[in-house]
Amino acid sequence: MDTSKWGKNIILGNNIEIGENVYIGHNCIIEDNVVIGDNTFIDSGTTVRSFTKIGADSNIGSNCIIGEYWMDFYKDHEKHRHDLTIGEHGLIRSGSIIYAGSTIGDNFQTGHQVTIREKAQIGNNVSIGTLSDIQGNCKIGNYVRLHSNVHIGQLSVIDDFVWIFPYVVLTNDPTPPSENFVGVHVHSFAIVATGSIIMPGLDLGQDCLIGAGAIVTKSVEAYAVAVGNPAKAISDVRKVKNKITGEPVYPWREHFGNYMPWDGIGFDAWYASLNVAEKSKYTLDNIVE
Amino acid sequence: MDTSKWGKNIILGNNIEIGENVYIGHNCIIEDNVVIGDNTFIDSGTTVRSFTKIGADSNIGSNCIIGEYWMDFYKDHEKHRHDLTIGEHGLIRSGSIIYAGSTIGDNFQTGHQVTIREKAQIGNNVSIGTLSDIQGNCKIGNYVRLHSNVHIGQLSVIDDFVWIFPYVVLTNDPTPPSENFVGVHVHSFAIVATGSIIMPGLDLGQDCLIGAGAIVTKSVEAYAVAVGNPAKAISDVRKVKNKITGEPVYPWREHFGNYMPWDGIGFDAWYASLNVAEKSKYTLDNIVE
Amino acid sequence: MDTSKWGKNIILGNNIEIGENVYIGHNCIIEDNVVIGDNTFIDSGTTVRSFTKIGADSNIGSNCIIGEYWMDFYKDHEKHRHDLTIGEHGLIRSGSIIYAGSTIGDNFQTGHQVTIREKAQIGNNVSIGTLSDIQGNCKIGNYVRLHSNVHIGQLSVIDDFVWIFPYVVLTNDPTPPSENFVGVHVHSFAIVATGSIIMPGLDLGQDCLIGAGAIVTKSVEAYAVAVGNPAKAISDVRKVKNKITGEPVYPWREHFGNYMPWDGIGFDAWYASLNVAEKSKYTLDNIVE
Repeated sequence: MDTSKWGKNIILGNNIEIGENVYIGHNCIIEDNVVIGDNTFIDSGTTVRSFTKIGADSNIGSNCIIGEYWMDFYKDHEKHRHDLTIGEHGLIRSGSIIYAGSTIGDNFQTGHQVTIREKAQIGNNVSIGTLSDIQGNCKIGNYVRLHSNVHIGQLSVIDDFVWIFPYVVLTNDPTPPSENFVGVHVHSFAIVATGSIIMPGLDLGQDCLIGAGAIVTKSVEAYAVAVGNPAKAISDVRKVKNKITGEPVYPWREHFGNYMPWDGIGFDAWYASLNVAEKSKYTLDNIVE
Repeated sequence: MDTSKWGKNIILGNNIEIGENVYIGHNCIIEDNVVIGDNTFIDSGTTVRSFTKIGADSNIGSNCIIGEYWMDFYKDHEKHRHDLTIGEHGLIRSGSIIYAGSTIGDNFQTGHQVTIREKAQIGNNVSIGTLSDIQGNCKIGNYVRLHSNVHIGQLSVIDDFVWIFPYVVLTNDPTPPSENFVGVHVHSFAIVATGSIIMPGLDLGQDCLIGAGAIVTKSVEAYAVAVGNPAKAISDVRKVKNKITGEPVYPWREHFGNYMPWDGIGFDAWYASLNVAEKSKYTLDNIVE
Repeated sequence: MDTSKWGKNIILGNNIEIGENVYIGHNCIIEDNVVIGDNTFIDSGTTVRSFTKIGADSNIGSNCIIGEYWMDFYKDHEKHRHDLTIGEHGLIRSGSIIYAGSTIGDNFQTGHQVTIREKAQIGNNVSIGTLSDIQGNCKIGNYVRLHSNVHIGQLSVIDDFVWIFPYVVLTNDPTPPSENFVGVHVHSFAIVATGSIIMPGLDLGQDCLIGAGAIVTKSVEAYAVAVGNPAKAISDVRKVKNKITGEPVYPWREHFGNYMPWDGIGFDAWYASLNVAEKSKYTLDNIVE
């Protein structure tokens, strides 16, 4: 552990495992029982709390809090153990707050001032935009991309390859106020456009497209386009054409590969390369026609 | 004042009164003329500015700014006196910014990155969620619960026992841009669901329910359910049934007591226990039928 | 450079030019190759990154990051040069994050926790409210006022004297997900009220008024009032009367001068005082009738 290039005024706790070639910036606080993988860079002013494990090759921006306290801390000021695991190659931008007690996969990326509360299960290759607020106790699959300022209520389930745009809310309380939460389930490849609000317990079907500003009060079928307040299904995504080129746009996986595992080879070739178990994991059997 | 367990690199101003068993974390800045009650815990990186008084048994998370400057500071860099008083048993989570010149009651709780500007009068047992933006010069009663990302415009008045859900905005400018603000008045027991926007100067009646995504352009009567853009009253809350149990849901105070003073005993028993002055304070005479 | 009144624990890089009468607060980090103008005040906990130039008479609040890294930094941890220039008399409030590689004019003002990404061109006398998220690669004119929590997508163009209210989104992706962005163009004197969402590539005409919660799917003509989901033009702003006084309200420049260059003298006198080049810059020829 070569600390000669580290910042000044760093506070290090006990029982810390720090890998090779790690950098820690000025004024950082690394509490007890933290594991930091090789080549990870932690910028100035960031606090990493106890029982946090950060994978190799990660970047943590300035002024983050990684492993934030649960309510139990405030009751007795004891550091109760709630493990936080963040995979390799993460990039968590400055000002973000991630609670203890979540599991986050590899290649995770956030914008700024993101909040992720406890008991979130987040897959690989997930991106969560600036100011998004993940309320915890929820499940987010792989290759999910949340843009800025998305609000994910507790008990939400988001499958793989879902896109959610700014100011979308997945709600969870059918009779507010209550604590009888039921989460929204967003199925693979769905697109939820800016400012739409999804009522509790609904299913947004595979490959559906929720239009901007939709207030969704009933579940939406696979491939449906739903818009308005209350939202109504008005079309099938496979009929949507690019206004300039006249070409079909959806299913988007056939036309867009950025950030996706099929980038450069196309979705069909990628899908064909999967084994049976992987194909069934992505529940794509009913997609490719 | 036992400072032996305090964090490192703390900067303390003059004329500070600190109670018994207070903890102050690394890199905190406590400016002049601050009062901190017994047993209060202030986490690392937090700044408490001049003329702030924090009650006993409180918790202030990391990287907060408590007693933030008004515009007058930036004109001459003098610390003009605007008292901030926060009651006992508060929990202000990390990253929050609370201006000088407000009064906040006991058992106050915030999420992260909350902003509360000057001249806010906030009662007891109020909770304000992550990223909410209280614009100041407003009045919030007791037992009010704002979820994440709520925007309260200046001159808003929120009575007791009100619930406001994410991305709700109480506006205040009937002819934007102007400075002829008129605030929204949300009456006791009202519920304002996710993403609704309330036009300036309107009344949301006692026990009314504003549906998700409603754009409210006219005042809403007590007990009314209003939805849509523009919002229309479509029902009475007392007719709303739980879809699963078939039981009535509203008035919610008859069915839900979490965080409320009637938790465990029921609303009616609690209300019956009040004296005449308290009953009239809560203006419940016209509620219990 | 009189540092005797500066805060403690400041970290200064190399090749820094600091003007007369500058104050730098506790725990600040000023990286290499920074220029700070005379009389500027930088509050505690703020980081100013390399290649940032801050004009004279500015105020930077606590815990800001000025000159935030681009993605290229995270690839090799080298400080690639992307100049950030902020004019004179700025006031950037605490918790804000401004990326490297933007140009911002004089008299700039932000609320708290604002994010401004790279390649933003921002004119003079612009104000951006708390929690607003400027996605970068966009152009904002002079005397533009964004209220809290406004989201400006990449490629947006906002002309002079525009007002945008909370939770407005200027979107940019006609076929999400894609990277075929087309920006919204908001013309001079337009007013975009709370919670409206503007679809990609649209024009909001000079002096138009977009009502609260409007979902705008077609371009809006100059002077039109558009409301609803989808938004429809329902009136002309020149017909809108103040409900109390019965007086016309719009064009607002005839009735409201706060923060504007015609404050105290009226718009017509100010406009008459401009030379031909200035008049044509503001494209007002077709406005004053």
